[in-house]
Amino acid sequence: MKTTLLAATLGLLATAAAAQSSVTIFGNIDADIAHYQLNGVRKTLLGSSGGSPSLLGFRGTEDLGGGLVAGFWLEAALLNDTGAGTAGGALAFQRRSTVGLSGPWGEVRLGRENAPTFWNHLVFDPFNGVGPGAATNIAIGAGGNGGSSANPLTSVYVDNTVSYRFGYAPNSSSYVGRGFYAQAMHAFAENSGSAAPLGRYTGARAGYAQDGLNAAVAYAQSRGPAAYGGPAGGEVREFNLGASYDAGFAKLMAHGGFNATGVAGTRYTHWGVGATIPVGVVGYIPVSYHRTRRDNAQGSGAQQVAVGYVHLLSKRTAVYGSIAHLRNRGGDTFTFRGGNGGSSGLAGGGSGTGYDIGIRHSF
Amino acid sequence: MKTTLLAATLGLLATAAAAQSSVTIFGNIDADIAHYQLNGVRKTLLGSSGGSPSLLGFRGTEDLGGGLVAGFWLEAALLNDTGAGTAGGALAFQRRSTVGLSGPWGEVRLGRENAPTFWNHLVFDPFNGVGPGAATNIAIGAGGNGGSSANPLTSVYVDNTVSYRFGYAPNSSSYVGRGFYAQAMHAFAENSGSAAPLGRYTGARAGYAQDGLNAAVAYAQSRGPAAYGGPAGGEVREFNLGASYDAGFAKLMAHGGFNATGVAGTRYTHWGVGATIPVGVVGYIPVSYHRTRRDNAQGSGAQQVAVGYVHLLSKRTAVYGSIAHLRNRGGDTFTFRGGNGGSSGLAGGGSGTGYDIGIRHSF
Amino acid sequence: MKTTLLAATLGLLATAAAAQSSVTIFGNIDADIAHYQLNGVRKTLLGSSGGSPSLLGFRGTEDLGGGLVAGFWLEAALLNDTGAGTAGGALAFQRRSTVGLSGPWGEVRLGRENAPTFWNHLVFDPFNGVGPGAATNIAIGAGGNGGSSANPLTSVYVDNTVSYRFGYAPNSSSYVGRGFYAQAMHAFAENSGSAAPLGRYTGARAGYAQDGLNAAVAYAQSRGPAAYGGPAGGEVREFNLGASYDAGFAKLMAHGGFNATGVAGTRYTHWGVGATIPVGVVGYIPVSYHRTRRDNAQGSGAQQVAVGYVHLLSKRTAVYGSIAHLRNRGGDTFTFRGGNGGSSGLAGGGSGTGYDIGIRHSF
Repeated sequence: MKTTLLAATLGLLATAAAAQSSVTIFGNIDADIAHYQLNGVRKTLLGSSGGSPSLLGFRGTEDLGGGLVAGFWLEAALLNDTGAGTAGGALAFQRRSTVGLSGPWGEVRLGRENAPTFWNHLVFDPFNGVGPGAATNIAIGAGGNGGSSANPLTSVYVDNTVSYRFGYAPNSSSYVGRGFYAQAMHAFAENSGSAAPLGRYTGARAGYAQDGLNAAVAYAQSRGPAAYGGPAGGEVREFNLGASYDAGFAKLMAHGGFNATGVAGTRYTHWGVGATIPVGVVGYIPVSYHRTRRDNAQGSGAQQVAVGYVHLLSKRTAVYGSIAHLRNRGGDTFTFRGGNGGSSGLAGGGSGTGYDIGIRHSF
Repeated sequence: MKTTLLAATLGLLATAAAAQSSVTIFGNIDADIAHYQLNGVRKTLLGSSGGSPSLLGFRGTEDLGGGLVAGFWLEAALLNDTGAGTAGGALAFQRRSTVGLSGPWGEVRLGRENAPTFWNHLVFDPFNGVGPGAATNIAIGAGGNGGSSANPLTSVYVDNTVSYRFGYAPNSSSYVGRGFYAQAMHAFAENSGSAAPLGRYTGARAGYAQDGLNAAVAYAQSRGPAAYGGPAGGEVREFNLGASYDAGFAKLMAHGGFNATGVAGTRYTHWGVGATIPVGVVGYIPVSYHRTRRDNAQGSGAQQVAVGYVHLLSKRTAVYGSIAHLRNRGGDTFTFRGGNGGSSGLAGGGSGTGYDIGIRHSF
Repeated sequence: MKTTLLAATLGLLATAAAAQSSVTIFGNIDADIAHYQLNGVRKTLLGSSGGSPSLLGFRGTEDLGGGLVAGFWLEAALLNDTGAGTAGGALAFQRRSTVGLSGPWGEVRLGRENAPTFWNHLVFDPFNGVGPGAATNIAIGAGGNGGSSANPLTSVYVDNTVSYRFGYAPNSSSYVGRGFYAQAMHAFAENSGSAAPLGRYTGARAGYAQDGLNAAVAYAQSRGPAAYGGPAGGEVREFNLGASYDAGFAKLMAHGGFNATGVAGTRYTHWGVGATIPVGVVGYIPVSYHRTRRDNAQGSGAQQVAVGYVHLLSKRTAVYGSIAHLRNRGGDTFTFRGGNGGSSGLAGGGSGTGYDIGIRHSF
């Protein structure tokens, strides 16, 4: 329900209602039937988040006058194939949990949300980072998967952050601003000095969006578990950039970047190209090619090619299908990770194919 | 809140609101003070779900035109005596988590929900499967309780399902259709090949409801942990049927069936009769007798007799009380399990009595 | 969203809507940047609940006629710095989870909620039991912290309770009644006889509020883990009282009490004074001094002094800052605990300072 809409409508009818309070309940439920085959192992499963991330959230803003707006956002990932959440199988607002203030000067937010360095992985991927063809299968290695040098604590979401952004709508979760846009984030390493994984993060992203063009660049340094630059020293560095252009017959996309672990000296470079091609007014075809390799290691890394079709039943509901082929090289162990919990669960390595059909429904 | 109602009302007032989006928040909070005595052990407790399952949910439908309807349903069990949920003590949508499409041809749903073979245990039990007198104390043994041969992974809820149903309202959670109704479900055994419990399930249910008569039959095969037909081979089979007839002075009910474990060769047969007897317009008396026994084991199993009273304070709120006597036979170890987390917590065995008084309030 | 408001407004417009059902979604998101230094250890962190408890809830009432009102309340604590909840990191309604009936004779509620003996710790603390200056840092030791004799199972929240209250609004979570008010609570020791912690609690609170004066007294006996009077025998006893008076230029507060463990013979006495001083119409200054000591142990315990400023941006939103100095004496190990999960995480002992700046936003 867009209760903000309800409240607004009621506001016209009952202006006597003094409180302009509002909360919007929002969500998306996405389920797919998927088949994966990798390195000789096959699996058929019911997955969630094959075409878009399944989630449930509560959000709201309050106009404080003088251009000042307070906003909050609570958003939980759903693993709706089993009804589970992401915190020990239960619900927690781990996709975003923030409170903030915005004004003409920009916005300050406190809490947990996506790292600035994660957004380019989504916005320039025709598959939005989910399903068999997700660019993040090989372009980013959250959770230490696939031999990547990404910091599992900060490559996707970051806890305990203070952030500033400019050029976005107040309280927005969009990763595309208007005109020139920028954001910077710092996360406290609250558990420094302990044996537990560290979570310090300092990063920024800047971009420009105008007339069908969107381009952005991001960089961050962070500290994770020992293998990723933890207590023993060293820092994980991530850099990426991307651009998209809506040429009418298709929206073209390209992005690239690297993850580098200071301690181990491992650095992965990745790049990809893709497009979403409209099919009449009720459908579109996402297509992409991605490539990752270890620096100074000829024939390493992985490559992936994917194509799909999304058929819109309404603004809120679509059915979709996709197929992706992933090939590891030089002993690397990337796998079909999907996003938002929609992993294939298969051990990485070798080569293989994943395909799915599914439905998404937002509210 | 039935925000669907709000949205509908607003629709009349503000037809300019283009989006017909809606989400309904719904729930039920039920708490009872219960005393159980079984096999010489006594316990007084505050329980949840004594008269109806405590739950909190979010659901909605969208009319896509041409008879097509998209729907989602997220429903979490509440253990409101402690504020806990069912996923490690926290909230998860483990009662139902589905997305689907329906049309004149029926409905297809994906996600987690009740097994077709579970519904007859509820709809033909005057106590709806909860409280001291729940038929499921002895008629089904989810969780491996009571020496039952039921598959704990699939006897109540099933993960990773694809299902088809016919004769129900779109997106319905009702277990009674209109006229001829039917449903079939398949769940993927996503963890096959591992040592973890298996969850493959294939089952169906069909029924007929007309003029106060309702009758249904269900059958399923599934694979659970080793003792229930897991990796070592074998399959758990469940069959049940039931009927109810509203004779005016009372609604009469009967049901029966069996659970059989292929590996162990254990098969439990159960049957029961019951009625709900109206008392004026504000109350009714549920009463039931149930019997379970192991095949080829004279004097085994258990029997249970229960009677209660439900006093309606409104359509949404009632107070109730009930008493049940359970007797194990031949060393079987059934106990007062209740439903939706409302277990007595007592070890099964011997005989004993449970009674409660409570309140339920839905919204 | 105050959907109650929506429903009420709609009620005027659409009296044909028969169902007077309503659910109110409510919440508060509070985050602070805090620095703590205690016993030589320093820590900077993003915290939650620095100025008020972060929470998300669902509640509603139904008028049953004849003065009878049914009500439910589900309220979960939020650790919004990481998006986590309090049940294994996930969401659960552990702040309050009740269903009840009220009438002219008072109210009966079943479920989990604050102990009567906890309320005086909040209502007579200018910092409301959260943030660096929380009185509960030293005045109560939930969780066994700081050498306190408080029962960790029942000093803040109590499971499995039946309670009666008089002089409060129906379904209220307020801790201040009108005129003479009183409440009594009993919690069942459901796990008696086991090695698990016990949770039996019997307590009561009574007060009087009129013309800017509010005074209350509370007493309880409970059983916790062995060290707190568990299976080995003995009972934890807690007593406290407090009063506040709104003198116009300031609201003055004082409270005191003791926690005593029967088994160990340890008894802590605490007292404190404080005030909230209005600054114009948009701000106020909370200030407090608290003192705790072990009986029969000269120079033991701790003392704390705190001052802050709260600047109201609206009725729903404020920014705030506070500073507190805590000094342990005689080897005691109190620390900056905060409330609602907002702990500093520092080991107790020695002396130190904590300060924060933050924002709170309710909806």
